[in-house]
Amino acid sequence: METESKLKIIPLGGLEQIGMNITAFEYEDSIIVVDCGLSFPENDMLGIDLVIPDITYLRDNLDKVRGFFITHGHEDHIGAIPYVLKEINVPIYATKLTIGIIDNKLKEHDMLRTVKRKVVRYGQHINLGCFRVEFIKTNHSIQDAAALAIYSPAGIVVHTGDFKVDYTPVFGDAIDLQRFGEIGKKGVLALMCDSTNAERAGFTMSEKTVGKALDSIFSEHKNNRIIVATFASNVDRVQQIINCAYNYGRKVVIEGRSMVNIISTASELGYINIPDNTLIDIEQLKNYPDEQTVMITTGSQGESMAALSRMATGMHRKVAIKPNDLIVLSSNPIPGNEKAVTKIINELFMKGAEVIFQDVHVSGHACAEDIKLIYSLVHPKYAIPVHGEYKHLKAQAKIAEELGIPKENIFILSSGDVLELSDEGAEVTGKVHVGDVMVDGLGVGDVGNIVLRDRQHLAEEGIIIVVLTLETGSGMVLAGPDIVSRGFVYVRGAESLMEEAKHVLDEIMEVCMDRHITDWGKIKTEIKDSLGDFVWKETKRRPMIIPIIMEV
Amino acid sequence: METESKLKIIPLGGLEQIGMNITAFEYEDSIIVVDCGLSFPENDMLGIDLVIPDITYLRDNLDKVRGFFITHGHEDHIGAIPYVLKEINVPIYATKLTIGIIDNKLKEHDMLRTVKRKVVRYGQHINLGCFRVEFIKTNHSIQDAAALAIYSPAGIVVHTGDFKVDYTPVFGDAIDLQRFGEIGKKGVLALMCDSTNAERAGFTMSEKTVGKALDSIFSEHKNNRIIVATFASNVDRVQQIINCAYNYGRKVVIEGRSMVNIISTASELGYINIPDNTLIDIEQLKNYPDEQTVMITTGSQGESMAALSRMATGMHRKVAIKPNDLIVLSSNPIPGNEKAVTKIINELFMKGAEVIFQDVHVSGHACAEDIKLIYSLVHPKYAIPVHGEYKHLKAQAKIAEELGIPKENIFILSSGDVLELSDEGAEVTGKVHVGDVMVDGLGVGDVGNIVLRDRQHLAEEGIIIVVLTLETGSGMVLAGPDIVSRGFVYVRGAESLMEEAKHVLDEIMEVCMDRHITDWGKIKTEIKDSLGDFVWKETKRRPMIIPIIMEV
Repeated sequence: METESKLKIIPLGGLEQIGMNITAFEYEDSIIVVDCGLSFPENDMLGIDLVIPDITYLRDNLDKVRGFFITHGHEDHIGAIPYVLKEINVPIYATKLTIGIIDNKLKEHDMLRTVKRKVVRYGQHINLGCFRVEFIKTNHSIQDAAALAIYSPAGIVVHTGDFKVDYTPVFGDAIDLQRFGEIGKKGVLALMCDSTNAERAGFTMSEKTVGKALDSIFSEHKNNRIIVATFASNVDRVQQIINCAYNYGRKVVIEGRSMVNIISTASELGYINIPDNTLIDIEQLKNYPDEQTVMITTGSQGESMAALSRMATGMHRKVAIKPNDLIVLSSNPIPGNEKAVTKIINELFMKGAEVIFQDVHVSGHACAEDIKLIYSLVHPKYAIPVHGEYKHLKAQAKIAEELGIPKENIFILSSGDVLELSDEGAEVTGKVHVGDVMVDGLGVGDVGNIVLRDRQHLAEEGIIIVVLTLETGSGMVLAGPDIVSRGFVYVRGAESLMEEAKHVLDEIMEVCMDRHITDWGKIKTEIKDSLGDFVWKETKRRPMIIPIIMEV
Repeated sequence: METESKLKIIPLGGLEQIGMNITAFEYEDSIIVVDCGLSFPENDMLGIDLVIPDITYLRDNLDKVRGFFITHGHEDHIGAIPYVLKEINVPIYATKLTIGIIDNKLKEHDMLRTVKRKVVRYGQHINLGCFRVEFIKTNHSIQDAAALAIYSPAGIVVHTGDFKVDYTPVFGDAIDLQRFGEIGKKGVLALMCDSTNAERAGFTMSEKTVGKALDSIFSEHKNNRIIVATFASNVDRVQQIINCAYNYGRKVVIEGRSMVNIISTASELGYINIPDNTLIDIEQLKNYPDEQTVMITTGSQGESMAALSRMATGMHRKVAIKPNDLIVLSSNPIPGNEKAVTKIINELFMKGAEVIFQDVHVSGHACAEDIKLIYSLVHPKYAIPVHGEYKHLKAQAKIAEELGIPKENIFILSSGDVLELSDEGAEVTGKVHVGDVMVDGLGVGDVGNIVLRDRQHLAEEGIIIVVLTLETGSGMVLAGPDIVSRGFVYVRGAESLMEEAKHVLDEIMEVCMDRHITDWGKIKTEIKDSLGDFVWKETKRRPMIIPIIMEV
């Protein structure tokens, strides 16, 4: 086979490829997978809880799959693990905190005993089939993030994971730029680099700058209760808030389930340092004056069920917002959440509180100049921008071109594309099946497009149900037609509309009986069409119409 | 009555007060209304087309209402006119272009003959009941915008409408700052000033700066077809694009229904100057080389039915995006539209086109320093920030305070608040009924919260309908129970789930018959509860369950 001596790189992350990070690396009889993320439902995926990748390709090549390498502990990189590992039980490799967060997830799915997890140190190499994988220290908005150097017979691929360059991180070391350089000197076949901030000029600021901003906020609000909302997984941010609290003599309450979970994991594993007698339980809050407390909470993205949102709307069982409160949103809205975040800010203002929501955040992703730095250290033959919307990948492709990588050596891959590469050349040679698997309650993949289309129709127009009972044999109407509606006209005139609709139905049935139409299919079509026309004429709406016929 | 000598100001713009601009000014037996806008449905208003204000207060005071004064022709200031004027037929006063746009709207509702419109010139004063209203020239992202000086026996109120300060407007005069100053010298009771950009420091740039940006884009893309998307109502923006087209020897196609409508009205009334032989029909596009054409189109907000979106998704019947196209988004996303806009940008990039979406736009609203200028000219006793979300009103309140207006003289009103004011004092003395009236198809106000809640439930969980036919008298089951579902589990295992559900129902009916339960209400409750429990246990979902019983 001609493909035997080439490395295949196949993104498997769902139709849109945004959010769901999962990429297969294949060489002869070996497949390793980098990351295993989920994405959150789009607005038109009504009632869907989560979206996970369709892993048909891995299932079809089950014998080859050797293991999963996880770059860091964010949902879009680990969220699908419980679903995917149910089918493909191979070991997971990741750094300590990442494994800790994965463990929490596996525990929820009662899978701790069935899935093998291996903690990897930076600098460690893992041999699996044709591959050797090295973990390299990076910085990101979660601790213990890693880039991967993937050594294959076809050459080295460097995958940055999500990263930023932070020369002065809050915890642990700065990104291991020396190692990027060293591997670059060996000769790198391809670089797969985070594109999230490729459109933004300049450098991404250090996480420590947020600590300074927080400090001046604390020093200017010595008489207020302070509530800081941020991302649950940003342990360094929480550390800095706790540091401020400690310096200004305040007790700290941690609120919100995901925040409590991650901070306790981080604390157990030694990734956060909380001074004694600083944390208090939310029940103890009332024992301290407001100005001696800080709450750190989830909900900075406007999530309607998170703690901050419940406080803002007065639905939180233990915390009521007061005029003397200062709320700090230590976050920026993720695209799509702008309106939800603004709604909460307005609600907090309406309760008389002060709200600070700008300039208390830095990104966890590299900006254009940082990306140039990584390209210059790694100096790859091929560039494969990853992680971002199409426009972000495009922006990184432009950067790569500016740095002298020939246009034909830059690949913006779509999900399912099979990129085959070796030192002699690279090209997309095919496409494997990929897709979105929707998770709704306990159902994984059982909600399909027909169900979604029905939900959309029901959502916009409501439903009219028509039932009637016919006599077996004669086809005579014994009962009905009766009409039941939901999500359809209600307040004004609806009753008379329904009465008229009943007349329309009576006429249809008379016509059917006159013409001796007894075929249920025909009767149902007749009901749908005539009632549909009537309702459209009267209301300019098209509810779903469901005729149900019974026979006795 | 104690209130007789006081002026009442009552915002009537719906529950959230954002979007729907409509404010009543009442003095003794006279009410005048400023603006009459609609708002667009929130995400949770499923299937709703528009939202208009509940005008119960005006209806209850019909005899007093003398007229509507409209500040400019944007939907959030004129959109509810056809609905409100059906009930309250008093004259509308506005400037020429504004009336032209209102006329288009009335024509669609076949109301041109029933509603009186009066064109007002800047500087003109209208006497109505106790009020005199003067129109003052301002600048905005639509031409012919006006501020209003409302003279009442209690004092003068200046209402800015939506405005910016543009010293070098594209068309017509700059804002009449002198008149603001002159009226200010007379002594102004209250200023109601646009708050949209109160959070932004500095000044809003002139519309002319966009012309310069467009010129350099045109000069750098002489070999591309150019497609510019912008707001349909921004006639000056369209003028500047046409100017560029003319200067670079390109023909212009105007595409998108709302754009065609407004530009033809503006052209008829002399608000836009299109050189001869510049406009061509979209059908003629094929007769010109790509680099000699420009398309100006709607859809800059990512609206899924607008021309740009249809082009981006390949659904436009006449225009296909090509790799040599340059698409310019001369707009910023309005909050809430960010994701839709980004989606279109990604789709255009994927089609190989170049996309410019930053720095080809300026706001139509005054920034902080412009607001300070107006306050300094008008020098009001009371400040009533208007137009914006709560956080924007709050930001303007802060500006007013900085300028020396005492805190107790600044009023952030909620919809329905009755602010009574005179030179002696001002206070909120009561609340009138306000609300959102939802428009769905031909139905105005017939969709209420119960219908919306049903739609939400249907959208997220789907529906299970259970029908059965009972024998009159005996209550014996003659047919069914049968199950029909929509928007509920479908692909995997659903059939066996439905079979099991049928067993559950059979059991329920057996129990009911054993116990001689013939009360339909009880049977229905039993079906709902038992089937609901079963489905929840099996799927963790809660579809709407509708039992329907027939009797023969």
